[in-house]
Amino acid sequence: MEHYAIGIDLGGTNIKAALVERNAGVVVVHRIATEAEQGADHVLDRIVEIAREMIDEAPQKQVAGIGIGGPGTVNWERTSLIYPPNIPGWTEVNLRQVLQKRLREDLQVIVENDANAAALGSAHYGAGRPYDAFIMITLGTGVGGAIIYQNAIFRGTTGAAGEIGHMTIDYDGPMDRAGVAGAIEAYLGQRFLSRHARYRLLNYPESSLHQAAGPNMVDLTPQMLSQAASEGDEGARTVLAWAGHKLGCVLGSAINLLDIRTVIVGGGISAAGDLILEPAREAVRHYVKPGLREGILILQETLGNEVGMLGAAYLVFEILDTHALTPERS
Amino acid sequence: MEHYAIGIDLGGTNIKAALVERNAGVVVVHRIATEAEQGADHVLDRIVEIAREMIDEAPQKQVAGIGIGGPGTVNWERTSLIYPPNIPGWTEVNLRQVLQKRLREDLQVIVENDANAAALGSAHYGAGRPYDAFIMITLGTGVGGAIIYQNAIFRGTTGAAGEIGHMTIDYDGPMDRAGVAGAIEAYLGQRFLSRHARYRLLNYPESSLHQAAGPNMVDLTPQMLSQAASEGDEGARTVLAWAGHKLGCVLGSAINLLDIRTVIVGGGISAAGDLILEPAREAVRHYVKPGLREGILILQETLGNEVGMLGAAYLVFEILDTHALTPERS
Repeated sequence: MEHYAIGIDLGGTNIKAALVERNAGVVVVHRIATEAEQGADHVLDRIVEIAREMIDEAPQKQVAGIGIGGPGTVNWERTSLIYPPNIPGWTEVNLRQVLQKRLREDLQVIVENDANAAALGSAHYGAGRPYDAFIMITLGTGVGGAIIYQNAIFRGTTGAAGEIGHMTIDYDGPMDRAGVAGAIEAYLGQRFLSRHARYRLLNYPESSLHQAAGPNMVDLTPQMLSQAASEGDEGARTVLAWAGHKLGCVLGSAINLLDIRTVIVGGGISAAGDLILEPAREAVRHYVKPGLREGILILQETLGNEVGMLGAAYLVFEILDTHALTPERS
Repeated sequence: MEHYAIGIDLGGTNIKAALVERNAGVVVVHRIATEAEQGADHVLDRIVEIAREMIDEAPQKQVAGIGIGGPGTVNWERTSLIYPPNIPGWTEVNLRQVLQKRLREDLQVIVENDANAAALGSAHYGAGRPYDAFIMITLGTGVGGAIIYQNAIFRGTTGAAGEIGHMTIDYDGPMDRAGVAGAIEAYLGQRFLSRHARYRLLNYPESSLHQAAGPNMVDLTPQMLSQAASEGDEGARTVLAWAGHKLGCVLGSAINLLDIRTVIVGGGISAAGDLILEPAREAVRHYVKPGLREGILILQETLGNEVGMLGAAYLVFEILDTHALTPERS
């Protein structure tokens, strides 16, 4: 029984859930719309619904617990998700209480920040497997981050560590969505990057993206950028080189502070692979002290979206290991 | 016996050593010139000499061990100091081996990076005592840093964590001594700060520093700046406000990454107290994500130079606690 857990990735648009077998990884994935606009209670119903579906998928419904990765803040005890952005009306909800009450009292339920869950997934199932310490950075709408140290999430003093997205690389630079000047999110967050690309591509009238992304390129996505760059589009490659340089700058700061030299990059634009990572590798050497310049690894997370669900499920396996609280006891 | 240890602060100019009683703190301090220009072997002789003097100061010469804080890299086992800047000819020296052989085989000998030693001293004897986690930043010739987490030094993967001095706040900014553009050391390192002040003070012809610091102010020191500012000198205050703002920028980045919101500032210019720290407190709020803005504390380390020696000595007490390897055994 302790070999199955459910990992849930709670996003503003979709709720994704995976039934995970500890050694084999993802057995099956479901996805439903979050319908966040219908409010917190409705989203809770949706979470219960998808969790119940996943329990039904397990052999004899033998699931040890549910791990949930969500945006925003998680309390130190990892029972509650607090003020997640994009879910109106959700203040602080004790997900452990709700899911145990509505599904099964003996379920392990653990909540984590979504970037932390992704890092844990990478550590146990993804590109992070060979490393007992790495920095995870996820490039999406926002820029998330997490720190794995000695095979565990480094949580800081309140559970909020790893906010690479708000680290500044230019104290007088453009503002990110949190009002931090020059924060890396203000360069690499999806809307910021697309906006930069739209203007930059004015210098590349021959770029295929002028066709692909609609009038004024308002529909430009990181996926389109990656795709065009991989097909040799010079303008798209220039944008990714610019983005990679900025990524290298902030990673240099993080490596100086943490002395953790392995970095795993996930999220939308990371699909561009070396087209963004190679400029980052070149830049990072210039932004760390000499003694830390050797042995830096910047790697792409290849598991994609599954990594968050896997990490969320792994939270359950981890609890089983450390607490030896197996449901058979009761 | 396990209540006395020797803490040594190995600098490029002076070697300072303290006999430390675990609860009372510093009993006595000696200081000798490093005479680094005479080479590594000579410096080793000097270290042995000052350590022997300090052992002679202890009641019945009952000293449990010697802790040494030095510049540069320390190996993971904390036995050796590797390529310290400013000591020509010193490659990698196993100080544990040397001191045990030349002084007493049963001495505990532990080496640490000097900023880490200062942080440990602050944690157990200084401004850091009430906190189980804090960021230490030391403003000297260079800018050093260390992380205390769960009452211990956070060492990273090779023992080099905490290099705040090389974190960038402007990817296109001035170079520090390690060639990192916009590193905080390129603003707050002693020579960089003095240089900025010299030019800035051209706008303040009435500043007392034009008299105090010699022709073209080439002798301007952080101490002079602090002194003049505390006496109300407007130019000096402007320089410190500028420096404090930069300090706040880099601390914001560090707080975002670590979720450690207590910061202790030591070293030369920290003597300016609120004249530099208040601008840092104002700035830091703009450089962290909203959820981390509450509860940030930026405090001055008031122990001065002693903090490094105390921390070095504490390395010995810590080993005694964790390993229960008391010399009485042998």
